[in-house]
Amino acid sequence: MSTGPANVDRWLLPDGVEEMLPAEAAKIEALRRRLIDTYRSWGYDQVIPPLIEYTDSLLIGLGHDLDLLTFKMTDQLSGRTLGIRADITPQTARMDAHSFRRQGPNRLCYAGHVLHTKPKGPLATRSPIQAGVELFGEAGLDADIEVVSLMLETLQLAGLETANIDLGHVGIYRAVAEAAGLSAAEQETFFELLQHKAISELEQWLESLSLSAEFVDLLQQMPRLAGDKSVLDKARQWFNGVSEDALAALDELEAIAAVIEQRYPGTQMYFDLSEVRGYNYHTGLIFAAYADGIGQAIANGGRYDHIGEVFGRARPATGFAVDVTKLAQLISDGPAAMRGIYAAASDDPAQWQAVRDLRAQGERVVCGLADQPAIQEELACDRQLQLINGDYQVVEWR
Amino acid sequence: MSTGPANVDRWLLPDGVEEMLPAEAAKIEALRRRLIDTYRSWGYDQVIPPLIEYTDSLLIGLGHDLDLLTFKMTDQLSGRTLGIRADITPQTARMDAHSFRRQGPNRLCYAGHVLHTKPKGPLATRSPIQAGVELFGEAGLDADIEVVSLMLETLQLAGLETANIDLGHVGIYRAVAEAAGLSAAEQETFFELLQHKAISELEQWLESLSLSAEFVDLLQQMPRLAGDKSVLDKARQWFNGVSEDALAALDELEAIAAVIEQRYPGTQMYFDLSEVRGYNYHTGLIFAAYADGIGQAIANGGRYDHIGEVFGRARPATGFAVDVTKLAQLISDGPAAMRGIYAAASDDPAQWQAVRDLRAQGERVVCGLADQPAIQEELACDRQLQLINGDYQVVEWR
Repeated sequence: MSTGPANVDRWLLPDGVEEMLPAEAAKIEALRRRLIDTYRSWGYDQVIPPLIEYTDSLLIGLGHDLDLLTFKMTDQLSGRTLGIRADITPQTARMDAHSFRRQGPNRLCYAGHVLHTKPKGPLATRSPIQAGVELFGEAGLDADIEVVSLMLETLQLAGLETANIDLGHVGIYRAVAEAAGLSAAEQETFFELLQHKAISELEQWLESLSLSAEFVDLLQQMPRLAGDKSVLDKARQWFNGVSEDALAALDELEAIAAVIEQRYPGTQMYFDLSEVRGYNYHTGLIFAAYADGIGQAIANGGRYDHIGEVFGRARPATGFAVDVTKLAQLISDGPAAMRGIYAAASDDPAQWQAVRDLRAQGERVVCGLADQPAIQEELACDRQLQLINGDYQVVEWR
Repeated sequence: MSTGPANVDRWLLPDGVEEMLPAEAAKIEALRRRLIDTYRSWGYDQVIPPLIEYTDSLLIGLGHDLDLLTFKMTDQLSGRTLGIRADITPQTARMDAHSFRRQGPNRLCYAGHVLHTKPKGPLATRSPIQAGVELFGEAGLDADIEVVSLMLETLQLAGLETANIDLGHVGIYRAVAEAAGLSAAEQETFFELLQHKAISELEQWLESLSLSAEFVDLLQQMPRLAGDKSVLDKARQWFNGVSEDALAALDELEAIAAVIEQRYPGTQMYFDLSEVRGYNYHTGLIFAAYADGIGQAIANGGRYDHIGEVFGRARPATGFAVDVTKLAQLISDGPAAMRGIYAAASDDPAQWQAVRDLRAQGERVVCGLADQPAIQEELACDRQLQLINGDYQVVEWR
């Protein structure tokens, strides 16, 4: 059999698509379980949304960016277009609106693969494992505080005790743009320029509009409203007399930050009042978590109060999603586990029974195969099962 | 907001695609963990293969059926064709051949979604959750026996103590066809007719060939070689003097059945010597497990010794896959869990600390939200956290 380039080629995975071998898979499985268990212990019920849906339901109301990220294909059964989910949050929002309605708050969580046509960033995967929580039915700040808290708990599960989080509020740029009298089309352009942090284009564009000098100045400064808590005070002076909504949004940010500071004292908070990147359907508070050494956000989320509308039930909503693969990178590998009992190949029913009993006690037991050598390192066993004086006994394997 | 047909329509899921709401998701999550933990306790290392691959690697050497089941789309990054996995077994075989080589036997397990363009049967899902194990590197019967045993353990994990299993051997129809002198093209037709259990077409077709009356008779009888253990003796008489390979395959079946009978005494075994349906890449022993009341096989598998070849390493292989969703149907629902502690909305840091401590002890604690009523049934809590004499205490909630 040739092992030439033809074979190697066939094995190449697409860019941004990974396979996970045992060491990494074990880390991800353990983390996935801890996340789900933690979310459940906060009252979030797990759901498993489908991998594919009609694009009519999958993409409605979610904006162009998510549309571009979504792989599409024709359904042979219906002739309609199917999309592979690029995000799970909207799927849970539709559950809350339609198939899993609750009168009071609805807390849902999930973990699963999503797929993207293109990587979201230079080093990003196209098939992240996304886990997250969503809290529906409550517009108040205590819902926002709960999900931000749970995002910080999520980071702690991976051993990250002091997180860096970014806080922003989609309502701010919107309120200021409205106060300046921008038309809907102009607001769209403003949003796009902010999204790309295109500061010089923003300045040129603002000068082309017929705005008062005061508003040109204010809108130009928006991308610079970023930094520690003092940014909130600075913004408050600027927005004073300009927009009540923007001031209200600042109050929300401040209140949330105060509780987070008290609950998670080590948290580094960074405020960015024009941050809108990667938020496709959000309407209020937005937040993201970062760790040293990992470029992109590990988790992000925020408030999105309108997705359910097109499905017949508008409910306030907030939540976050975490990239499980990226989070797993924070966990150090530690020494490879060498726990297990090796039982050499045997036809003896008594050995079978002994193996069975050991497994029932929670032991990992690997059985030998008649024609195979016992390679201890590959078997990852530290002990052996041996017949000693008519009894099967577990002994050290050196 | 209208809740008319337009909204309902948008929510329809494609045929054969399901969402799993909390009760079902919890059952599936619990089962998934028990499967993975059991496979690990037998020495199988978990891997997480990618959801998509180039069709060049995904489908090579796997036959037309799997090709038709595979959703395909164009990769915007490379212009090449991507396929969504319709089966995970071949992915693990390529790991064994290429990215996760072991000198000795390689035991791998997995659990994840697969997607099919069309349902495999009238009531089948198009997005099953597939779990399974694969054992590479050992051609001997003890490998086959290990995976059949583990399939029976899998059924027991869902509470099925006495399983019905079908046993067959792809080598038998092949050996008999070769002994009869069928050409490669004729063997292909023979395989297809057997696969569809098209008995009358088979008879017509056999008469159109120039075979001896003895072989026409033998090949015609193949689909009827099905039933309890006595079928093996009947077949042995027929194949005597016709094909040594067919006789050897019968010996294998008998030896495997003897060990299974001894290890799992309640198992109902059914032999079907021409069973080839749904086995696309198999080469030797094949097996499937059924449960009363569920039409299709819950699990199936067998030996497939050739997949690794095109990737440069031919290794013997055997394994099985189980449909986790179908297996979960065997588990009775039981009364809905109402375990948890409800803590009314509060700004008191002492309550936050009390909630935190309870969660750390493994309790499920759901926090109230200021503007929301506490609906006990939806919160699924049997206790409440209350401030009594300055202390937060857990009390019954009636």
